[in-house]
Amino acid sequence: VKTKTVQVGLGKIGREMAKLVASRQNFELVGLMDLDENMVGRKASEVLGTDPGLDLRVTDNEEDILSIEPDLVFHSTKSSIPKVAPQLKKFIEAGADVISTTEELSYPFLRHEEASKNLNQMAEENGVTLFGTGVNPGFAMDLLPLTFSGIAQQLEKVSVKRIQNASQRRRSLQEKIGVGLTKSEFNEEVKEKGGHVGLIESLALVGTGLGWKLEEVETETEPVIAEENTSTDFFDAAPGEVIGMRQIARGFLAGKEKVELDLKMYAGATEPVDRISLSGVPEVTLKVPGGIHGDIATPAIAVNSAAKVIQSEPGLMTVLDLNPYPYSFENPSD
Amino acid sequence: VKTKTVQVGLGKIGREMAKLVASRQNFELVGLMDLDENMVGRKASEVLGTDPGLDLRVTDNEEDILSIEPDLVFHSTKSSIPKVAPQLKKFIEAGADVISTTEELSYPFLRHEEASKNLNQMAEENGVTLFGTGVNPGFAMDLLPLTFSGIAQQLEKVSVKRIQNASQRRRSLQEKIGVGLTKSEFNEEVKEKGGHVGLIESLALVGTGLGWKLEEVETETEPVIAEENTSTDFFDAAPGEVIGMRQIARGFLAGKEKVELDLKMYAGATEPVDRISLSGVPEVTLKVPGGIHGDIATPAIAVNSAAKVIQSEPGLMTVLDLNPYPYSFENPSD
Repeated sequence: VKTKTVQVGLGKIGREMAKLVASRQNFELVGLMDLDENMVGRKASEVLGTDPGLDLRVTDNEEDILSIEPDLVFHSTKSSIPKVAPQLKKFIEAGADVISTTEELSYPFLRHEEASKNLNQMAEENGVTLFGTGVNPGFAMDLLPLTFSGIAQQLEKVSVKRIQNASQRRRSLQEKIGVGLTKSEFNEEVKEKGGHVGLIESLALVGTGLGWKLEEVETETEPVIAEENTSTDFFDAAPGEVIGMRQIARGFLAGKEKVELDLKMYAGATEPVDRISLSGVPEVTLKVPGGIHGDIATPAIAVNSAAKVIQSEPGLMTVLDLNPYPYSFENPSD
Repeated sequence: VKTKTVQVGLGKIGREMAKLVASRQNFELVGLMDLDENMVGRKASEVLGTDPGLDLRVTDNEEDILSIEPDLVFHSTKSSIPKVAPQLKKFIEAGADVISTTEELSYPFLRHEEASKNLNQMAEENGVTLFGTGVNPGFAMDLLPLTFSGIAQQLEKVSVKRIQNASQRRRSLQEKIGVGLTKSEFNEEVKEKGGHVGLIESLALVGTGLGWKLEEVETETEPVIAEENTSTDFFDAAPGEVIGMRQIARGFLAGKEKVELDLKMYAGATEPVDRISLSGVPEVTLKVPGGIHGDIATPAIAVNSAAKVIQSEPGLMTVLDLNPYPYSFENPSD
């Protein structure tokens, strides 16, 4: 039986998710929603650049989506829970499981305890699962380090370093991290707004997953400055201008630094990598040379977790609650 | 509240587990069991080389262990389910959760479907969890590749290569993989017995976790031959003699090779590593240079999963069912 699936949010990540859903036999893509007036009314084949085999058009109206009675909603719109909660509640009340890449949903209890309780209760009452996922937060700087930490007899410190070459990333991400801005513009437009959303959620996921009550959480955000002219498909930066950002989050336990998450995303990064180091017994490092490409991985993780989300107990789930196996990779016989 | 814990099996891995348990404030080590007559009656401090702070002595009698009414049994004796099941049943009936490194328990349904059903039913009836875990099987060649595969949009193939330097491993492992044997002795004593137990369990875990119904499983076992004189703390091999083994398991889907697990364990390996490569979209590799040291990691994984095993629903669980977070790392305040 195919899962009747809709995609809400048709930015770069949302379109990738919809294409992936359309490509797998275990899903039936039955709806597309976005508020962008340049999208509304357009055919799926145009918007996705691939033909899902249905005469689907983009709607901006949740009622259209709800009338389809989807089993599953993939949701990829905003980073903040207060901004997405009213819409998520509509899907939950309609009885659909929801997989969302909203960054704050990766560990919703941190900044929005009350809203999390409400969403959890509503999901339970309606017998559906709301699952927050993605690559960062949700995988590279939390789930993967956590999984790796399982091999430690003594864990003095977990250090995670993620360097992404922003030149290869979507326009909206380049904008978010300040590519092409001056330093003072960066301080106003990026630093003030908190930069990348999700790093303290990752820290909370790691701490909670290790069984540690982290205290004295620190974060720093600073610009990465161009040393030479740097151009992406979307922005140009002269020497002295901003090519991206570095954000660090640290968690302490009894005064000792126990978790350090160091995220650098900038245009022209020559050695992108994900690196996880465990100090203690053993001393050991895991590397993904080239790094895990966020714009590929986020849609993948979301779609791959569908089978388990559908089977799961109802409620609001994070990667700590919901182990994603079996993934939704298809069998040739499906 | 401390978890009343016993260790059953005091080989190298079992002793490491008991030491780790004794070192953590969240456990109370209250019993030690082994059948080895050289162990029985000896003090914990002698056997473990560390003082758990209790006047504990090794027993060979399950009744002694059961009379302690432990909350949790760490179990590390034999590789095969038929050999361990009668003993496990006694602990289960006594109401203890059990974490076992018995290799076949990592995916018990594969070779012992009926016994698995019985163990599961018994665990459910007694309200306890039986969890099979370890580094290999249980982590390096199954759970870690599975976690990493979550980032794949298209997964053509998962290739896992694990090279361990057996010189650094325990005597019983060196013996198991044939260090110091001639080729013909290897064929009789290692190959005939199937070599390392767990590789096809790992293959089944990966296949099941990806949502694939793997068919046509193939395995190969061959000796690794010394090119020069090679000595470990326990064995010597002349050129032409055996220094270890290579074992490969392959799983196919619709005639295509989709999973390859390649395990080399031999004395004097100069580049130990764990490497996981995903083919498809993206093409990406994860490496642990130096490799995950099995004799350190297995006790760690077992002990770290205790908190979750204790909280878990009753039944027979594998790493596909039981996500191990939060781990049992302690807080300074515990």
